[in-house]
Amino acid sequence: MDPNFSGLTQRLAKANQSHLLQFWNELSPTERADLALDLQGMDFQEINGFFKNAMEMSNNKQEKMDTRMEPVPMEVLGSVTRNRSSLKAWELTGLQCISQNKVAVLLLAGGQGTRLGVSYPKGMYDVGLPSHKTLFQIQAERILKLQQLTEQRHNIKCCIPWYIMTSGRTMEATEKFFARHNFFGLDKNNIVFFQQGMLPAMDYDGKIIMESKGKLSMAPDGNGGLYRALGNQGILEDMERRGIEFIHVYCVDNILVKVADPAFIGFCVQNEADCGAKVVEKTNPTEAVGVVCKVDGHYQVVEYSEITLETAQKRSPDGRLMFNAGNVANHFFSFSFLKDIVQTYEPKLQHHVAQKKIPHVDAKGQLIQPDKPNGIKMEKFVFDIFQFAKTFVVYEVLREDEFSPLKNADSQEGKDTPTTARHALMSLHHLWVLNAGGHFIDENGRRIPAIPRDGAAGSVTDDGNRNLKDGTDMPIQCEISPLVSYGGEGLEELVKDREFHPTLMIDENGVHQLVKNGI
Amino acid sequence: MDPNFSGLTQRLAKANQSHLLQFWNELSPTERADLALDLQGMDFQEINGFFKNAMEMSNNKQEKMDTRMEPVPMEVLGSVTRNRSSLKAWELTGLQCISQNKVAVLLLAGGQGTRLGVSYPKGMYDVGLPSHKTLFQIQAERILKLQQLTEQRHNIKCCIPWYIMTSGRTMEATEKFFARHNFFGLDKNNIVFFQQGMLPAMDYDGKIIMESKGKLSMAPDGNGGLYRALGNQGILEDMERRGIEFIHVYCVDNILVKVADPAFIGFCVQNEADCGAKVVEKTNPTEAVGVVCKVDGHYQVVEYSEITLETAQKRSPDGRLMFNAGNVANHFFSFSFLKDIVQTYEPKLQHHVAQKKIPHVDAKGQLIQPDKPNGIKMEKFVFDIFQFAKTFVVYEVLREDEFSPLKNADSQEGKDTPTTARHALMSLHHLWVLNAGGHFIDENGRRIPAIPRDGAAGSVTDDGNRNLKDGTDMPIQCEISPLVSYGGEGLEELVKDREFHPTLMIDENGVHQLVKNGI
Repeated sequence: MDPNFSGLTQRLAKANQSHLLQFWNELSPTERADLALDLQGMDFQEINGFFKNAMEMSNNKQEKMDTRMEPVPMEVLGSVTRNRSSLKAWELTGLQCISQNKVAVLLLAGGQGTRLGVSYPKGMYDVGLPSHKTLFQIQAERILKLQQLTEQRHNIKCCIPWYIMTSGRTMEATEKFFARHNFFGLDKNNIVFFQQGMLPAMDYDGKIIMESKGKLSMAPDGNGGLYRALGNQGILEDMERRGIEFIHVYCVDNILVKVADPAFIGFCVQNEADCGAKVVEKTNPTEAVGVVCKVDGHYQVVEYSEITLETAQKRSPDGRLMFNAGNVANHFFSFSFLKDIVQTYEPKLQHHVAQKKIPHVDAKGQLIQPDKPNGIKMEKFVFDIFQFAKTFVVYEVLREDEFSPLKNADSQEGKDTPTTARHALMSLHHLWVLNAGGHFIDENGRRIPAIPRDGAAGSVTDDGNRNLKDGTDMPIQCEISPLVSYGGEGLEELVKDREFHPTLMIDENGVHQLVKNGI
Repeated sequence: MDPNFSGLTQRLAKANQSHLLQFWNELSPTERADLALDLQGMDFQEINGFFKNAMEMSNNKQEKMDTRMEPVPMEVLGSVTRNRSSLKAWELTGLQCISQNKVAVLLLAGGQGTRLGVSYPKGMYDVGLPSHKTLFQIQAERILKLQQLTEQRHNIKCCIPWYIMTSGRTMEATEKFFARHNFFGLDKNNIVFFQQGMLPAMDYDGKIIMESKGKLSMAPDGNGGLYRALGNQGILEDMERRGIEFIHVYCVDNILVKVADPAFIGFCVQNEADCGAKVVEKTNPTEAVGVVCKVDGHYQVVEYSEITLETAQKRSPDGRLMFNAGNVANHFFSFSFLKDIVQTYEPKLQHHVAQKKIPHVDAKGQLIQPDKPNGIKMEKFVFDIFQFAKTFVVYEVLREDEFSPLKNADSQEGKDTPTTARHALMSLHHLWVLNAGGHFIDENGRRIPAIPRDGAAGSVTDDGNRNLKDGTDMPIQCEISPLVSYGGEGLEELVKDREFHPTLMIDENGVHQLVKNGI
């Protein structure tokens, strides 16, 4: 194959990327074909423009934004703890929207589980629940259950389409996984897979980095790649065809995610919001979470490298952190807003620059593993478009009810690990059982207290069951299938005034007690 | 030796404890002497009375106290976040009291590190800080530094006596440890060791349990044993002789404890409190921490086996938990209150019953390891006496600044472990350096952001230093000797506008950077 085919050499020269062909003569015919194919699909002028703009924005960002930041005003803030009396009404509004087939969920699942130590998509991860369900299955079953709850209430058939954004790295594995599991009981026509784009890594001079003699170093374009993909993969049209009006967007890694949460959707709809963010209270100034706030009058998520510690430590008169609306990557969009974003606003946004250590081949073709950052990846973030909202609202929920992300492999010092995710889910389900009137008993038939005694005060348990629930805060082993309960509802008839030995599992086949000694 | 010696047999028979001599004939002369000595020192009538009253109280406790509980009223509550403008004045009052030699600290250190997996006193534990200081050393150095700060401010010599309550199990090891380390630079005349009492374990019929044929099963009488020990070991007299007016009582296991915290003491003194409790906000209903509240008009710490989950989940209109004053075993007492307690009130308090699996010898002399609770230990709690306070105050501090207890051995699922304690201290010291104007840099000389970026929102670091501070929230390695700074003060001249490679250690010999590669 001739690299001059279809003018590629000229296009590369014009874009100052001719080095991409420097090893052409050393490549096999197959390698040449692959490289030519990759290069032909790329718009180098556009990529160079991305680079130039991203670097400019990155260099201008030095100005700290502390003086420009304001907290979220109370008027746009809904809270599950402060607005308890409104919760039911919000939920009913949300369910009504679902019953009218106006609600879709959109899953951001382009990432691999690299930090988890696996090479497959994160959604396929099994955190070690008694059921060994994966994140994908848990989310699928919540959608299924929510459809059923809506159908029961409104006595009408409905569906919640599930749009799943993958990347070049996860598309095939994700689709196969869903097919192999029969789409977890969902109608496969209502699950729509699509791919976010990829962009090449660049060195600081704007040259595309090669990871081998015949291959460019490519990476997904950030979860904000969503908007471009919505447009160029026909997803907006699919939504329009189905009559979708409200979209819940979320990240795959949160084991507690309330997919299409009717209360959140109802809150946003009642407030006629075009865009909404679910948040949890940030309580420690140095906690690793971005905060939703206003900057120069527009809403955005501010990351912590962007503000001073002094600002992060500021407090309101009530003692809470002033900037405490912790972003949990759970967003609400109206369809019309999303359409405006895709068609009008998003293309104007610059990419963020992520400096990285990027393995590459040098001029001699030797693979180099750099020990300091040698180039950048370009990304957009899903929340970059908050600034364009006309009516933006914020909905605060409780961390222990809704947020436990899976990011890192298990380790002694770990945060956001399979263990913390598993514990978070089991602790929540334990609470559901107690709140529905059920009880847990230990191996001696004695009731296990809902809350362990406080070791810190030097006191001790008075019930001799440290082996079941002790000072290490090991949760009661308890898992409730989403097919039985979406958010804790409907459990009374199954558990009220009953006593259970852990492990307790409640699923579509009934209530099971998995006692270790085989009884 | 004859068991009838000094009427022991009769005393035992009268107290219905004759079984304690059932193996007398099988014992060696030494064993007989030891047993007789143990028994002669015991007041069986009193012990039987304790048992009767404790069991009665335990049986009456079934009545839940939900309807009787009220949260701490705002008028008695001071807060480091809501009353920032008062902090300095409180601190100055506290320092003045210290300068007048009116303040003592009292350490509850009767426990062994059983759950930590060690048999020595907890205070001797090294959590693995760069300095490898033990909990005892850290606390000693904080006292020393606070004395120096007071002396500098008031230009007068002063001392903070340190009363250390041990138990029969920890007394000898503790005293030796302090002597071996030259009392960590403190004047040994100002460190007073004393022992809490021991009580025998009893079966449900009130019979004292034997752990071997010649030995009773004994356990410390709870941290509330403090009050009896203060009286019968001459500690109150020692305090009176020294002119002590205010006492800060705390547990050994909190690595962040602000020993003799002048702000806390000043707050209590300004409010003319006879009793005060330091608390941290409880944010999760099922968190394992007792809460300070009012019951039937009197203050007390309520443990969670005592209330329903419904009450634990109650929220105030501001969205916070209604019962959120989490007890951290840091208390303030006026000397006159303590004296009244010891002489008048404490003897009237009943012991709490802790049901336990207690190893014991059966009638045939065989050692039995029970698999369910077979008896009780009797304990009082240090906070049992809150109810007698005439002016009780509550002082709320930030958990990340002041509370990280060491309870459990390291494990993947661990809470309150050596790792969490070490991280809590290093994170706090990292923050001190940043707030004093210092910076940390990575191996490439680039500044490490104070707060890592949020992995949950799908964003990435933009600085390529994940190996130093990444999503697992590993703290920057940074330790500041208490001899240099008690609470973050005085660091500007050492760190302002300087850049440091972790590990950073600041101690009385200067500022050290322990770079791993030996530079």
